[in-house]
Amino acid sequence: VAVTEHLRPEHRAVLVVHNETSTGVRTDVRAVREAIDANRSGALLIVDTVSSLGSMDFRFDDWGVDVALTGSQKGLMLPPGLSFVCASPRAVEVGARGGSPRNFFDWRPILEDNAAGFFPYTPATLGLFGLREALDMLFEEGLDNVFARHHRLAEGVRAAVRAWGLAILCEEPDAYSDSLTAVVMPEGQDANAVIARARDRFDLALGVGLSKLRGSIFRIGHLGALNELEVLATLGGVEMALRECGYPVPAGAGVAAAEGRFVTQDQPAEAGLRR
Amino acid sequence: VAVTEHLRPEHRAVLVVHNETSTGVRTDVRAVREAIDANRSGALLIVDTVSSLGSMDFRFDDWGVDVALTGSQKGLMLPPGLSFVCASPRAVEVGARGGSPRNFFDWRPILEDNAAGFFPYTPATLGLFGLREALDMLFEEGLDNVFARHHRLAEGVRAAVRAWGLAILCEEPDAYSDSLTAVVMPEGQDANAVIARARDRFDLALGVGLSKLRGSIFRIGHLGALNELEVLATLGGVEMALRECGYPVPAGAGVAAAEGRFVTQDQPAEAGLRR
Amino acid sequence: VAVTEHLRPEHRAVLVVHNETSTGVRTDVRAVREAIDANRSGALLIVDTVSSLGSMDFRFDDWGVDVALTGSQKGLMLPPGLSFVCASPRAVEVGARGGSPRNFFDWRPILEDNAAGFFPYTPATLGLFGLREALDMLFEEGLDNVFARHHRLAEGVRAAVRAWGLAILCEEPDAYSDSLTAVVMPEGQDANAVIARARDRFDLALGVGLSKLRGSIFRIGHLGALNELEVLATLGGVEMALRECGYPVPAGAGVAAAEGRFVTQDQPAEAGLRR
Amino acid sequence: VAVTEHLRPEHRAVLVVHNETSTGVRTDVRAVREAIDANRSGALLIVDTVSSLGSMDFRFDDWGVDVALTGSQKGLMLPPGLSFVCASPRAVEVGARGGSPRNFFDWRPILEDNAAGFFPYTPATLGLFGLREALDMLFEEGLDNVFARHHRLAEGVRAAVRAWGLAILCEEPDAYSDSLTAVVMPEGQDANAVIARARDRFDLALGVGLSKLRGSIFRIGHLGALNELEVLATLGGVEMALRECGYPVPAGAGVAAAEGRFVTQDQPAEAGLRR
Repeated sequence: VAVTEHLRPEHRAVLVVHNETSTGVRTDVRAVREAIDANRSGALLIVDTVSSLGSMDFRFDDWGVDVALTGSQKGLMLPPGLSFVCASPRAVEVGARGGSPRNFFDWRPILEDNAAGFFPYTPATLGLFGLREALDMLFEEGLDNVFARHHRLAEGVRAAVRAWGLAILCEEPDAYSDSLTAVVMPEGQDANAVIARARDRFDLALGVGLSKLRGSIFRIGHLGALNELEVLATLGGVEMALRECGYPVPAGAGVAAAEGRFVTQDQPAEAGLRR
Repeated sequence: VAVTEHLRPEHRAVLVVHNETSTGVRTDVRAVREAIDANRSGALLIVDTVSSLGSMDFRFDDWGVDVALTGSQKGLMLPPGLSFVCASPRAVEVGARGGSPRNFFDWRPILEDNAAGFFPYTPATLGLFGLREALDMLFEEGLDNVFARHHRLAEGVRAAVRAWGLAILCEEPDAYSDSLTAVVMPEGQDANAVIARARDRFDLALGVGLSKLRGSIFRIGHLGALNELEVLATLGGVEMALRECGYPVPAGAGVAAAEGRFVTQDQPAEAGLRR
Repeated sequence: VAVTEHLRPEHRAVLVVHNETSTGVRTDVRAVREAIDANRSGALLIVDTVSSLGSMDFRFDDWGVDVALTGSQKGLMLPPGLSFVCASPRAVEVGARGGSPRNFFDWRPILEDNAAGFFPYTPATLGLFGLREALDMLFEEGLDNVFARHHRLAEGVRAAVRAWGLAILCEEPDAYSDSLTAVVMPEGQDANAVIARARDRFDLALGVGLSKLRGSIFRIGHLGALNELEVLATLGGVEMALRECGYPVPAGAGVAAAEGRFVTQDQPAEAGLRR
Repeated sequence: VAVTEHLRPEHRAVLVVHNETSTGVRTDVRAVREAIDANRSGALLIVDTVSSLGSMDFRFDDWGVDVALTGSQKGLMLPPGLSFVCASPRAVEVGARGGSPRNFFDWRPILEDNAAGFFPYTPATLGLFGLREALDMLFEEGLDNVFARHHRLAEGVRAAVRAWGLAILCEEPDAYSDSLTAVVMPEGQDANAVIARARDRFDLALGVGLSKLRGSIFRIGHLGALNELEVLATLGGVEMALRECGYPVPAGAGVAAAEGRFVTQDQPAEAGLRR
């Protein structure tokens, strides 16, 4: 991969975004680690897991990650306000030797105080209470079930996009994000008009395209606390906004396609209806 | 109407349910008043507005209602826990002359204390704080807009029921409820299986049929704090539950029908897409 | 006691208030039961535990109570909105034979539905969630500890009242309430002026005297979620209000007396200060 | 003052803490500004207002402050989680010319986005909703009244400390903090034992002495949402903890002294008691 080509001996870290929020593309973090190792590089592997952690599988130890970062407001289902950093022993050791000045973003006083059950600054306590509850919810459902749920919901969204005759920005099915789908509008059509219509008419928040994707895509988030019916509501809102903007999507096409992914048993159930 | 036939001179009150929660049938309260008056009866008109107030138009003074009752947990969008009674001067006067014993349900000590800004018992204060906010929300949207919204959402639900090939229990379109729709399953099919499936698979709460309707209908509530996308989610859940129970509803049929009621502008918008 | 004197064979129930909220007097419920039994009366023993349950010891089974009633807003530490009734098998049986008409206040449909995990009407669900948490809190502290805490706090309040040179309305120490103390103002002085001053100047809510006690007493509540410092704050507010109303209470006298009840160790502690 | 002595031409900023949280000493910010100006220095005046803003008067414009910083969790009465920075036009201009690298702590992208009603990162939205309410509360009471309230409460605390026979760490009455009082324990006595006792026995949180003051002082906070009775509760807890640790404070002495500051009318009120 690109890592192999570009990695130079003087590089000290490789920074990777696990799930690209602006495009809906997932990075194979393990493959990046293997590429680093294959290059006999000592570079640290630093991973942004902001829009993946808690919604998509991420394995800090197994994948040889050195530093992972995330926030409270996505897969952890909390209001924004907390950030998290997880560092490997090797990262801590490299950090201790590092020469650059640092202050608030220095993890050393935090690690030291944490060991005694304290925090060196005033922590955002409400967020910590919420975090305890959020983790209980995730572990009660079971992480494997959480990831399977997000995969199922994402499959529903992707089926809907295809039913609308639109393209998914991520061209590689292996790299599909299970927490976000970026949808490409046909050439010459304004994605931002769809986003504005969804917001004004149906109180539905879609993401805009960023920088050079501005106006050509819209983004559907499907991470965190979410179930099948909420996905159907979102898809219904998108297809109504598309229609109101003049894009010829057949009524209910996207919802119907997603339902096809969610209905697991399409024949007479024994406990069900007799016809 | 029935009132004219059955009203006898000795009758002291006519009790009417404005919106029948178990069947989804709306009563023409004004016509009941007119029938009482045409009979030269002095009967009080007492109206249960539990599942209509705040979602469907109800006019205490214009319609000559003497006593109206409701609860906090439906159109007023609050948790259950408060009940409300509204009495006309004539009802208060008749009540004062009434001979039956009463205690907790006597409105006289409440009226007396209320006049001085008090309440004779310990009131459920949290509910009152919530009520203030709920009324602000209703008045901010405007009651006419609230009623129009519920009519539009109800029309969407009814369109979906027809698209599923099922019948609406209320046979008289003029009497359709805008806060609840009872759906009749075909002969020999178990509505309760659909309800159980919707709950177990999609976390969706549908109402059961009561007494002799048990097993033959299910009920979809669409009152209170509700918008288009929540209705689509509900309809998606119902049609998936129907399919999982073996009823042959075409994928997305109900949602598509409802969207047809919610999309107001199905042509190229000037600010929208150019094709 | 009075029960022995007044009980007649035709009496079907004895109604007792466990803790008299208007006077701060505790009734010996077990003695009432013994008096009923000694009279060979079949009367049911019905007890109002509104301001005692959860703050003072109450033993439904041991004391032979037939029906007990309470509310959510006192010892159970919840907002007002729930009432509770507990009935003995004998009360249920007598109720089933009873001839008086009843409807909402009939416990039979509730008992029947409860057996299957349901409730015949729409329950105040938020209150039930709160109740679960409140009971967890009481049981975590331990009921004996809860009762000991309220006794200690009440002793502090009573010491303060004496330090102010005022009388406790309840003249019998054995009957002191541990959840409420009624304080008698000297002849000719207006208790309501003290109450108004406490409210207006210090945002402190004291209870007024009811009916013939109006103006001659004020009431200090000390039940539910309460600790030593909250009692000191209350007593400080009362003594400042008394002073502002011209009653010559020495500064801090009541608080000092209460502290004397709360400080358990008034000598150099081994882990404490060395002097 | 010290500023005049130490300020050198090469100094580019003077950093001042308005209210020293570790000592309870207030800095005369205006005098610092005047000293800077008198020195013909162009140094920016940067002020930490963390434990003063919203509890003590602070005048950004009048006092010629260039940058002020605060947090949500003190005078603004919110949970911890928001920080605030206020910069003068001159500070913004100097910052734009500054050569040091900066990223997250750069105010330029924030100022730019704010102008359009946005924020460049995900803001802690719940904190912002709370802030709106907190500011409403402060402005409803009136800032002058808020400051007067904190001064009155602080005078009560200081009177209590003197009544205990203990010293206030801040020796200069003009520099007393109205949001925090640091109390000096007599030589040889352990302030941390008092703090531990207050916490364990009375659930009262006192502040420890920091660095070289560790063990010799404890700190009483009296800022933010606070009234007279809460101060009395705090003082009651402190004096009980002192007694339990063997320090000979007369019962109620501190509370009595504070009450003397809070009672405004110690004579018979016309509407009060007649004796």
